[in-house]
Amino acid sequence: MQNEKRVILDCDPGHDDAISIILAASKISPLNIEAITTVAGNVEVEKNTLNALRVCDIAGLTDVPVAQGASKPLLKKMEIAEEIHGETGLEGPELPSEPTQKAAREHAVDLIISKVMASDGDITLVPTGPLTNIALAMIREPDIIPKIKEIVLMGGGTFGNWTPAAEFNIYVDAEAAKVVFESGVPITMFGLDVTHQALATQETVDQLSAINNPVSHFVVDLLKFFIKTNQDIFGMDGGPIHDACTVAYLIDPSIFDVNHVRVDVETRGEFTYGMTSVDTLDVTGREPNVNFAYQLNQDKFWQLFEEALKSYSE
Amino acid sequence: MQNEKRVILDCDPGHDDAISIILAASKISPLNIEAITTVAGNVEVEKNTLNALRVCDIAGLTDVPVAQGASKPLLKKMEIAEEIHGETGLEGPELPSEPTQKAAREHAVDLIISKVMASDGDITLVPTGPLTNIALAMIREPDIIPKIKEIVLMGGGTFGNWTPAAEFNIYVDAEAAKVVFESGVPITMFGLDVTHQALATQETVDQLSAINNPVSHFVVDLLKFFIKTNQDIFGMDGGPIHDACTVAYLIDPSIFDVNHVRVDVETRGEFTYGMTSVDTLDVTGREPNVNFAYQLNQDKFWQLFEEALKSYSE
Amino acid sequence: MQNEKRVILDCDPGHDDAISIILAASKISPLNIEAITTVAGNVEVEKNTLNALRVCDIAGLTDVPVAQGASKPLLKKMEIAEEIHGETGLEGPELPSEPTQKAAREHAVDLIISKVMASDGDITLVPTGPLTNIALAMIREPDIIPKIKEIVLMGGGTFGNWTPAAEFNIYVDAEAAKVVFESGVPITMFGLDVTHQALATQETVDQLSAINNPVSHFVVDLLKFFIKTNQDIFGMDGGPIHDACTVAYLIDPSIFDVNHVRVDVETRGEFTYGMTSVDTLDVTGREPNVNFAYQLNQDKFWQLFEEALKSYSE
Amino acid sequence: MQNEKRVILDCDPGHDDAISIILAASKISPLNIEAITTVAGNVEVEKNTLNALRVCDIAGLTDVPVAQGASKPLLKKMEIAEEIHGETGLEGPELPSEPTQKAAREHAVDLIISKVMASDGDITLVPTGPLTNIALAMIREPDIIPKIKEIVLMGGGTFGNWTPAAEFNIYVDAEAAKVVFESGVPITMFGLDVTHQALATQETVDQLSAINNPVSHFVVDLLKFFIKTNQDIFGMDGGPIHDACTVAYLIDPSIFDVNHVRVDVETRGEFTYGMTSVDTLDVTGREPNVNFAYQLNQDKFWQLFEEALKSYSE
Repeated sequence: MQNEKRVILDCDPGHDDAISIILAASKISPLNIEAITTVAGNVEVEKNTLNALRVCDIAGLTDVPVAQGASKPLLKKMEIAEEIHGETGLEGPELPSEPTQKAAREHAVDLIISKVMASDGDITLVPTGPLTNIALAMIREPDIIPKIKEIVLMGGGTFGNWTPAAEFNIYVDAEAAKVVFESGVPITMFGLDVTHQALATQETVDQLSAINNPVSHFVVDLLKFFIKTNQDIFGMDGGPIHDACTVAYLIDPSIFDVNHVRVDVETRGEFTYGMTSVDTLDVTGREPNVNFAYQLNQDKFWQLFEEALKSYSE
Repeated sequence: MQNEKRVILDCDPGHDDAISIILAASKISPLNIEAITTVAGNVEVEKNTLNALRVCDIAGLTDVPVAQGASKPLLKKMEIAEEIHGETGLEGPELPSEPTQKAAREHAVDLIISKVMASDGDITLVPTGPLTNIALAMIREPDIIPKIKEIVLMGGGTFGNWTPAAEFNIYVDAEAAKVVFESGVPITMFGLDVTHQALATQETVDQLSAINNPVSHFVVDLLKFFIKTNQDIFGMDGGPIHDACTVAYLIDPSIFDVNHVRVDVETRGEFTYGMTSVDTLDVTGREPNVNFAYQLNQDKFWQLFEEALKSYSE
Repeated sequence: MQNEKRVILDCDPGHDDAISIILAASKISPLNIEAITTVAGNVEVEKNTLNALRVCDIAGLTDVPVAQGASKPLLKKMEIAEEIHGETGLEGPELPSEPTQKAAREHAVDLIISKVMASDGDITLVPTGPLTNIALAMIREPDIIPKIKEIVLMGGGTFGNWTPAAEFNIYVDAEAAKVVFESGVPITMFGLDVTHQALATQETVDQLSAINNPVSHFVVDLLKFFIKTNQDIFGMDGGPIHDACTVAYLIDPSIFDVNHVRVDVETRGEFTYGMTSVDTLDVTGREPNVNFAYQLNQDKFWQLFEEALKSYSE
Repeated sequence: MQNEKRVILDCDPGHDDAISIILAASKISPLNIEAITTVAGNVEVEKNTLNALRVCDIAGLTDVPVAQGASKPLLKKMEIAEEIHGETGLEGPELPSEPTQKAAREHAVDLIISKVMASDGDITLVPTGPLTNIALAMIREPDIIPKIKEIVLMGGGTFGNWTPAAEFNIYVDAEAAKVVFESGVPITMFGLDVTHQALATQETVDQLSAINNPVSHFVVDLLKFFIKTNQDIFGMDGGPIHDACTVAYLIDPSIFDVNHVRVDVETRGEFTYGMTSVDTLDVTGREPNVNFAYQLNQDKFWQLFEEALKSYSE
């Protein structure tokens, strides 16, 4: 398959980030991973970087630069989600103790800027953690803004999981999110409305267990842990593999229904900091800035998921 | 039927407010209407007062005091919803030009305070417009707070209709709403989540048209207009008779499913002013302050509605 | 002397409020005190009302209605300044245990509304505490706004005493202050810039002690206590009799230099809540709304003060 | 004279920034200028960089790296002060059309980070423009924070010049200022309270005109323009050479009286955005974080100024 879509995965792995990388690196994926950049989010940035390197080993990504980025949000104090992802950020499977590859010496923000500036405007950014790195890159070098092809991100939604109004990724650094959503770059957004439809359950685990290759085993172990913490903390019926929606969309956009709507990020609210205000009914009359994914085709999504894991047996 | 529940209806009629009064005044209702107070909201307060008096005539409420209240929100500039309710606030049916009764000379806020202070703690307030009057009464005479039995209100929800985040009643005077929601008085809240389930459609109109008494004709004419504006403005399949949920609940609480949750009112947000943050998942860990209605039993609701209108034939 | 200026003194006595009433009631004053209304501020409103009645006894005001008003700010929690005024609010002199007069049964807000509505637009409001009563009156009956002749108030300044940015009266209820400052009523404002120039010192006490009538003795005892707490808490060289500036100005405007400038009240700031932003340099270009007093003529002020106290010997 | 104090001048020249550089580079200065970094402020960052290079030529700074930094604030839209500094940012003197030196290829933020990280904790940052670069460096590489010796900055004050409450440098990027003021790095702050005392007048111009070397002529021409715009725009009696206070202090701290106080930066206010809340009276009880300069010794300041300019004749 042609490698025709150039992407930078900006992430905080994180169970669903890890799965997202694995989908992107699979043989069914048309994505060319230019770099993996990490950001403080689910756990501290150093752990996220180590995890990204470990996942690269598992997914056979030996020549993709992994660069570490921001260790804290633009303005806020740091906040992490250890209760969901465990102390390492990737609890569940046995992890390779020492990854083969080392992190790049370059800072994530510099790598993003240099890759985009050197491109023909054909690089898509895929942030699945807080948007600190992307915002920092835009603040420091505004010239990248018109050269980014698209931002396909996981974050936000019409309801929250970290507060009643806000989803974790946006809540952690709402100022960064505001910079990104107001940048003018085309955005496709996978918020909780749609990522909660990507719900891995015990049934999913059973089905994937049949695939039987090292990558599928790794994913199954991730899911077992992730399903349990989501059940315990949020009372959900499984574990929503939020971040994987972004890559699934890039592989096959037809999996999702999207609306072109106005989305604004709240940074001032007393109870709503980090909320994404999604103007589904177009009551604001403001210019749409986001392709808002609201519907996931279950059959297509899980079929793609299985095929991706199976492709690692080849 | 015993008149065992004493209520003050605080409203801005308004099509659905009018229907709410008619339900409350019907022969199947156990409510004893102590007073009707008006507030600026759907249209200007003077129009709302005139409309309240007209509805009293239609519903045969000849001895209920109607007192006019606040002509503007506590702090904000006034905002009205003429596009939904028409210029008079009650477009659709032919209206009695001059109501029989006159408005009380007392200010709504004084009437609320004096009624509650003179009561045995058995008066329920039923606000179906902005909460300005109720907040003003609480600010001016804090001693009423422990004497209010309950507040059963229409407002808010987990999504908005006036902005992407805020419902009209709360948006018009979020500061007043904050005063009320933080007062400590028991609150049962009918937000858009449930009031959108009380959706009057052409089918509803057809069914109610069969009843054939002056009150039912009046309601049918209200619904025709209201269904049309809700379709035109919001693209809905009918007209949600929001306010009537409050009275339906007071007549028969079993129509609704409610959760006891924390609800906070946002007054600081850039994009979320007037939003009610509803902590459905209990992620805040804060003390619940609201019975949040989220589910309406269609059969029971419309059956009560029909019976109430039919009772006017007796 | 002609009684040609009708005033309502809205206050929270309070040492400097008490002195302000005494100046207003003196034989050299052309003020006709229509009413004294009280508000929660320096201490709780009930104490302020009792103090107002006591001061009426001392000043010989036997026929002025004293009406109690708001017991808390519009939206904020209550805050008092007991460390400045002592537990009773009027520590220092021996106080008449039981005042002759009783408080009016009417609420302060109602009294303000009825007096202003019944007037020919010739009543000046003189608030020397938080602006809660005045704002409540304006919210409840907007028709009073064009009928208020002027508001001559003590509050605010270009620096603070309760926070680095905010003066006590405005800080206690900044939302109320915002309502008043944006009302369009002509305002003359005595902020800390000028009231700190009205500094009573030991020398003042020595001079006034010579006057020798019951009122002057009372004032001297007030000043002794007030000078001491201002020295202890704020490290000042004396006690600024803030509130008395308002009445001194109404008796003799030539005591003060004023600028016509724009003043806005901050209600959103993290560190500046309750600040009055005074546009001395006209950098905002916004319409002036306040006569801002910035300079006090020492000789004239203290001479008026002495004459007022001496007039009680007659 | 020993070069014992290592500094990075972060600036937006700008008349008073230019003079500040000239003082720092003079033969009487013990400052070792490690780098000059530029930031968007008085005019666009490209113009500020060009101006910095021009001033280096004039001051004989041939081997100091000049690195360009942020072209806009962290979160806000850009705002410049062209009316004060003219279109070029340095109107008045004849400017060398093409500077000898070129700007470094490194970004200002990288240069600040690498210089500080490579130091023994002995570098003082001297920002005389908006604090965007300094904040970006701290966000991107938090490890520099404990290695910065001190930040000696021009900005803020107890009153404003750009709004009634806010000084230009802080107003342009209050979020950046907040990051810096809350960083824990020791700060000495020259706000308007003291910089307005460094007022160059026609008399200053007359005196300096006598010195007669190319640098003094350049400064005199700067002052003539700057005095005029400050008179025209702000109605001042001369031009306050704000930024020069920072370098004067580093050369001779005894010129200034300072207080150790708490300073907070307002980023939420409706009327007070960008204000520095200076707790002169210690009413907050919060930990002091700033040496706040409030008094300038006129004789010493102008004598240092003259000697610095004279030293260019040697």
